[in-house]
Amino acid sequence: MTDSDIYQSVFERNRQWVKERTEEDPAFFEKLAKEQHPDFLFIGCSDSRVPASAIMGVEPGAVFVHRNVANLVVNIDSNSLSAIHYAVDHLQVKHVVVCGHYGCGGIKAAMQPRDLGILNGWLREIRDVYRLHHDELDAIDDPDETLKRLTELNVREQCINVIKTAVVQRNYLDRKAPRVHGWVYDLSNGYLKDLNFPFDEMLEKVREIYRLTPDPRKDLDLSGKNPPLPAKKKKDD
Amino acid sequence: MTDSDIYQSVFERNRQWVKERTEEDPAFFEKLAKEQHPDFLFIGCSDSRVPASAIMGVEPGAVFVHRNVANLVVNIDSNSLSAIHYAVDHLQVKHVVVCGHYGCGGIKAAMQPRDLGILNGWLREIRDVYRLHHDELDAIDDPDETLKRLTELNVREQCINVIKTAVVQRNYLDRKAPRVHGWVYDLSNGYLKDLNFPFDEMLEKVREIYRLTPDPRKDLDLSGKNPPLPAKKKKDD
Repeated sequence: MTDSDIYQSVFERNRQWVKERTEEDPAFFEKLAKEQHPDFLFIGCSDSRVPASAIMGVEPGAVFVHRNVANLVVNIDSNSLSAIHYAVDHLQVKHVVVCGHYGCGGIKAAMQPRDLGILNGWLREIRDVYRLHHDELDAIDDPDETLKRLTELNVREQCINVIKTAVVQRNYLDRKAPRVHGWVYDLSNGYLKDLNFPFDEMLEKVREIYRLTPDPRKDLDLSGKNPPLPAKKKKDD
Repeated sequence: MTDSDIYQSVFERNRQWVKERTEEDPAFFEKLAKEQHPDFLFIGCSDSRVPASAIMGVEPGAVFVHRNVANLVVNIDSNSLSAIHYAVDHLQVKHVVVCGHYGCGGIKAAMQPRDLGILNGWLREIRDVYRLHHDELDAIDDPDETLKRLTELNVREQCINVIKTAVVQRNYLDRKAPRVHGWVYDLSNGYLKDLNFPFDEMLEKVREIYRLTPDPRKDLDLSGKNPPLPAKKKKDD
């Protein structure tokens, strides 16, 4: 097929898809067009082999999706933070999922000694994950296993970055949602693996330093009378 | 269903999906895991009703996907620019598609007189599109039609933002790819509409100001002998 044929064939397949959906349910698109009420925000990798709705087996309308290189959530990134804000505050999603995948080109690229131009800064976030967990990662002998574990730890750290946001902390205090989950998708067999991210424990831990909702007993008192940092975890926290 | 049931049901559906795919082709995941060679980069909206691969009717592996609120490509946004760079330079995609959709909540929100917090800056890009095209948009009486046209013009402007990047200009000069396309997805009927973005014409036009590959006849000469801006379009450009 020429480039142009490849391009044109998409429109044929789109018409075929519409035909199949309306044969199953003539009102399919009419109902869908009214509003979206997704239960999930899915933050996943741009990799062509990780189509969010397909691997989750869900219908259009179920998952609000942000996809970028290596499923990152960066403190100053308007792009991912806007997606989180919109999904959590405006759509009131119940679950936020960060989904990485083994065999991620972004993770591999990040650990290569190469100047990747504009990608350097973005992928540096992954080396920052390595730095936080270097004892564990350095102890693994097999380079493939190191990358696999780095993929899992990257998901974990991005889950933590989601919890660091005010919008997630505030919503969880108000409506006990969203909960944050970490998954890895295994390209070699198609299965989603739940990393069982310890949400409640991490929420409490993250809020020791990143608490963004007021608590007069604990927050920084600029008068100098109280300890200069929020108090450490207490039983009644 | 409780929140927890909703969550757990994803893993059941994922196992079902794996079963179906491997029944069709026992080597499906094995082949897919080897490498990705997508022909397309799809830049689309995070909206839950716009699942890229499904509406394009393509298999996993065919489309590298970046999705954000209102399908924007912003000059200083590391996130979208990293996705473009990775797809164009490293995966050598043949087509870059910017796909908007009618009924976009981001577009609607952008035009409301409300303080949307962290979303303000992101959505301001859409008002910037309005500003560039206000004559045309102000002339439309029906507010729904105004939003529809704004959706199309937003796609057009994001296509132009893609062309402004060095990686796209350099790749197109080197290998005659990628070409950039603008689509709108119509939620009410499921059809993809090709806006027939005039790529060749726009590439030339954009490069009058945003040329990022050297051309000694035309580029800014700091000695002051040549005109201070690149020469206007010539026949041999």
